[in-house]
Amino acid sequence: MTVRAAVAGASGYAGGELLRLLLTHPEVEIGALTGNSNAGKRLGALQPQLLPLADRTLSETSAEALAGHDVVFLALPHGQSAAVAEQLGPDVLVVDMGADFRLEDAGDWERFYGSPHAGTWPYGLPELPGCRAALEGSKRIAVPGCYPTAVSLALYPAYAAGLAGPDAVIVAASGASGAGRTPKPHLLGSEVMGSMSPYGVGGVHRHTPEMIQNLSAAAGERVTVSFTPTLAPMSRGILATCSATATEGVTGESLRAAYTKAYADEPFVHLLPEGQWPATASVHGSNAVQVQVAHDEAAGRIIAISAIDNLTKGTAGGAVQSMNIALGLPEDTGLSTIGVAP
Amino acid sequence: MTVRAAVAGASGYAGGELLRLLLTHPEVEIGALTGNSNAGKRLGALQPQLLPLADRTLSETSAEALAGHDVVFLALPHGQSAAVAEQLGPDVLVVDMGADFRLEDAGDWERFYGSPHAGTWPYGLPELPGCRAALEGSKRIAVPGCYPTAVSLALYPAYAAGLAGPDAVIVAASGASGAGRTPKPHLLGSEVMGSMSPYGVGGVHRHTPEMIQNLSAAAGERVTVSFTPTLAPMSRGILATCSATATEGVTGESLRAAYTKAYADEPFVHLLPEGQWPATASVHGSNAVQVQVAHDEAAGRIIAISAIDNLTKGTAGGAVQSMNIALGLPEDTGLSTIGVAP
Amino acid sequence: MTVRAAVAGASGYAGGELLRLLLTHPEVEIGALTGNSNAGKRLGALQPQLLPLADRTLSETSAEALAGHDVVFLALPHGQSAAVAEQLGPDVLVVDMGADFRLEDAGDWERFYGSPHAGTWPYGLPELPGCRAALEGSKRIAVPGCYPTAVSLALYPAYAAGLAGPDAVIVAASGASGAGRTPKPHLLGSEVMGSMSPYGVGGVHRHTPEMIQNLSAAAGERVTVSFTPTLAPMSRGILATCSATATEGVTGESLRAAYTKAYADEPFVHLLPEGQWPATASVHGSNAVQVQVAHDEAAGRIIAISAIDNLTKGTAGGAVQSMNIALGLPEDTGLSTIGVAP
Amino acid sequence: MTVRAAVAGASGYAGGELLRLLLTHPEVEIGALTGNSNAGKRLGALQPQLLPLADRTLSETSAEALAGHDVVFLALPHGQSAAVAEQLGPDVLVVDMGADFRLEDAGDWERFYGSPHAGTWPYGLPELPGCRAALEGSKRIAVPGCYPTAVSLALYPAYAAGLAGPDAVIVAASGASGAGRTPKPHLLGSEVMGSMSPYGVGGVHRHTPEMIQNLSAAAGERVTVSFTPTLAPMSRGILATCSATATEGVTGESLRAAYTKAYADEPFVHLLPEGQWPATASVHGSNAVQVQVAHDEAAGRIIAISAIDNLTKGTAGGAVQSMNIALGLPEDTGLSTIGVAP
Repeated sequence: MTVRAAVAGASGYAGGELLRLLLTHPEVEIGALTGNSNAGKRLGALQPQLLPLADRTLSETSAEALAGHDVVFLALPHGQSAAVAEQLGPDVLVVDMGADFRLEDAGDWERFYGSPHAGTWPYGLPELPGCRAALEGSKRIAVPGCYPTAVSLALYPAYAAGLAGPDAVIVAASGASGAGRTPKPHLLGSEVMGSMSPYGVGGVHRHTPEMIQNLSAAAGERVTVSFTPTLAPMSRGILATCSATATEGVTGESLRAAYTKAYADEPFVHLLPEGQWPATASVHGSNAVQVQVAHDEAAGRIIAISAIDNLTKGTAGGAVQSMNIALGLPEDTGLSTIGVAP
Repeated sequence: MTVRAAVAGASGYAGGELLRLLLTHPEVEIGALTGNSNAGKRLGALQPQLLPLADRTLSETSAEALAGHDVVFLALPHGQSAAVAEQLGPDVLVVDMGADFRLEDAGDWERFYGSPHAGTWPYGLPELPGCRAALEGSKRIAVPGCYPTAVSLALYPAYAAGLAGPDAVIVAASGASGAGRTPKPHLLGSEVMGSMSPYGVGGVHRHTPEMIQNLSAAAGERVTVSFTPTLAPMSRGILATCSATATEGVTGESLRAAYTKAYADEPFVHLLPEGQWPATASVHGSNAVQVQVAHDEAAGRIIAISAIDNLTKGTAGGAVQSMNIALGLPEDTGLSTIGVAP
Repeated sequence: MTVRAAVAGASGYAGGELLRLLLTHPEVEIGALTGNSNAGKRLGALQPQLLPLADRTLSETSAEALAGHDVVFLALPHGQSAAVAEQLGPDVLVVDMGADFRLEDAGDWERFYGSPHAGTWPYGLPELPGCRAALEGSKRIAVPGCYPTAVSLALYPAYAAGLAGPDAVIVAASGASGAGRTPKPHLLGSEVMGSMSPYGVGGVHRHTPEMIQNLSAAAGERVTVSFTPTLAPMSRGILATCSATATEGVTGESLRAAYTKAYADEPFVHLLPEGQWPATASVHGSNAVQVQVAHDEAAGRIIAISAIDNLTKGTAGGAVQSMNIALGLPEDTGLSTIGVAP
Repeated sequence: MTVRAAVAGASGYAGGELLRLLLTHPEVEIGALTGNSNAGKRLGALQPQLLPLADRTLSETSAEALAGHDVVFLALPHGQSAAVAEQLGPDVLVVDMGADFRLEDAGDWERFYGSPHAGTWPYGLPELPGCRAALEGSKRIAVPGCYPTAVSLALYPAYAAGLAGPDAVIVAASGASGAGRTPKPHLLGSEVMGSMSPYGVGGVHRHTPEMIQNLSAAAGERVTVSFTPTLAPMSRGILATCSATATEGVTGESLRAAYTKAYADEPFVHLLPEGQWPATASVHGSNAVQVQVAHDEAAGRIIAISAIDNLTKGTAGGAVQSMNIALGLPEDTGLSTIGVAP
């Protein structure tokens, strides 16, 4: 099979990471690359790490440019995907790396994004119950947010096994690439290096309803999520520290058994051996997720921690993984569980 | 007044930071500097940032070396302070920057430190109720741990005002200097840079009982603490993200009022204007604490976040602040609320 | 003496560092703070590290706002200082932290800056021969560039003593704050962290003629300078690695003797003991300069390396030091040789 | 072809990077993994980024453990390779990633390493004239040092074309992984982050004679090298800023032509388009070398700058590339020119 893929938004960090992965995907041929404000520029100037594509030039994002491909990846600002997807027709696989089609509840969408809800597409987190099946053969995929990926994979087994109460508290640290490539004062290297700082505190971050959606589905009841994202002085990586009240009778053993079972056959999620904790450096550039879990008896809480690369498993790798499933390819085609460390 | 001060443990990070502050303290004259494994070495080779002391030489830590000073600061490994303090006599002000005399409960000490409890000294966090008075005229001071400093100042006003339930959840990120200067593989620059990683997860970190002690005192009831420390890719700074169930009837206004009142007259703790959140870079090298608080109605929790410099307010600055009180000097003598940023 | 000082350009990195220093300067009272695009904003939002000034508001840069001060510091974009200075009158001490009045040669100015030359003011690098005397009582000061400060102090003793040939080769690494606070894609944290990259290669960087001017004056002959600046993944600091052909008969001893003599009485320049080399962390936030020198016999070159904080000695500290001289204050008033490390 | 490969020294940074590459090499099967002080430990604890090998256990380095492989990679401390290689027999391909067999001149070896010279093996930098041919079919390979790799590829085309005088001046910045994984105080994260510092200044770094050997061979005359390595606050990457006197008649065009010709057919060395300069982030985790060159007419020097990943092209990638040649495999098998950035 040769799959011809276009990338809309090839000049950003998500687009660049996606191209890094597609370049070594054995079944993919890279087609059109678009990027509005950077149309006409050499990719070598924008993504100097992608040497094999250095001489490619970006075109404007348009239906014409994106036509004639088997797969179109959309790495566009929120709210722009629906219009593009409509023009592509129902037979093209459209993989939306933005937020537009992630939420099931229109009210949540409108409250957090302030625009009309465009709909809901099959959700590209195959490790969650039911998601893998929904992706098979699908022509539309909503790639999860980076934080919801890390958080859902850290906590869902505990919820699915009834070991966690509906009061999740999450503090996650993200590398600066999660904030995108548009220059803003607080993202300058001088500001980011040597500093940890929170943002979107108090339930206002847009990834919150997506986490609630995923955890509630696993729990079979409404889970509240207190979510605090923080900006860490690194380029990549998310470390999600998650906890919830331990339900009655939880033991370290029952907790570990639940996670062992949940991830026994997952190619990308690795429950670490007891005593070893995740580190973002270990999954740098890889599609792997490292997970560890503990029971704090004195505090009466379970603690689950995951590490992902926000650009790989958190965005572009998750997109490729879901594409593979949709196309009937082996799920790990073109993806790696090997990190670039130190 | 001229206070002659000795520093035992002058070659570590806490000792170096203390000397940085003492060098500009108008009432202090720096006396003996000791450091066992580095005895005989020039301070200029160990602490090259302290140019005015470059030609001083470290001596062995001994009662003789430390005799004849008004104040002796102990920056020693846990468990060594009691023996030294005894030899110094009751009229010398002994400021212990280690953990030995922080905990009131001998059982807590033994469980977390595995050795007999040496006792309890006045606790050097003057912002907590009763602490300032206990420090006045004291000849013994137990300097708080860096994490308990950040966490207690983030949360105590909420507990003191009855706005927070007894289920604190804390995730804190610390710069690598918090782990000390002894070379260990996981503290190598190659490991730390570009990585966030947790450690001491699940209630086992030694600072946990100290937090419980402080928050329970403020709350007037036993508070449980789920504490997860993480190592961040920076040299200095702690960002403590703390939350607890909001008690019935809490509003954003009542929360803000409690913090405003608690810190109105505190020289070092700054409640930020609404909408502005702490960043560790802003307190780099300063004794200031930045605090902000929010009420997440949907999650039913209050969120309080603080930023400190772990070596300054978290260790050496807190020590100097408490020394000032003990000696009857203005509390902010030789201390600054100005950070070195960016 | 109380000196009333205004700062034009208080929202940038140089302005912020200047305010940090002025806040602890015992003879200075901080007056007007201006900043065009940020006029009307609280300083606490722009420079959150300067807590004592948090409630000050920026005004527009104008003759009226700057009137009535003893000293006016200009931290403005290149080319704007002359017009402001004229309006301030000849009795006000004007300290220009921009490039406008640094170069003696109008042709150099026009070639590198592309605009008419505004003139030459006394040069604020007191350690260079003749500079200190020219600053005494002056009402106009041109603060040197950060790279020329580091490079001139590394190399001038060798040139003054006739030990270095006229072929200086300089490679300097600077922290990102040297590039200023205006957001640009290549200055994003995601780009800067984990990367070293050169810029302005091949003799085109604007600081090149200033270095040539200083080194040629010391040498008494025209010195060529091959200068390559590089951007390093840190917020502050310059490490300047400088070399030149060793002139006939140079020895390690003669070299060391020249530097020892040059800096024996300098309060801020420290020739390190043999075998110890500068590190930028050691001068973080300090006005100190660390210098070391070696003779590479096999290569026939002398190597001189200096470390400064680009924002302190390289900009704002140098400005304060020169102001002190101009006003007849002790040169080190309000300045420190103590770095904030680690 | 299936090549069975053993790695001696699998717990260090070079060994880990080598395993990362071998895991995706289509012709290699990973055999014995040894590491003396870590013998008996799980690789998952030592190299947590290598998930597919997590359950492998390290054995002691011994002839028995290394027997029965087609290729043995030695990532051992200097001076230990010869003894191991002798035991492996002449038919096994031995790839030494240490320094033992790099230098041709026994006197150089003895001066810089202080032990008897073990010999000289074919040099694993195929891009240098004659090296590729010498590697074909060879059973012994000396992998170059990381700095000599970066420097030789930056400068050799200029020397080979007679455009550079014999007075190379090199300042290179390296990530901390270049200093290895043995914990030392100056390599602690707290020391490395936020700091640039030189080491081995004045012609004493052990990589100096290797650079002289390579550049002199290209020039056809003895080239002197003034080499200053600096430690940069990043985990990986080398940026080598190299210059030399421009010979008579050099122009930007002649310089560019020489480099274009030298690297036209090289799979890993990329001469960047004019105006674009190398950055270490662009080659992070890749075997690519980015090179750019300029002529500074005013200074009379050519400037050549290269960026490599010190662990990939600078060590393990170079080793695999040379192994491929020795075994008759396509040279780029299992290697990539795609960096992991940002």
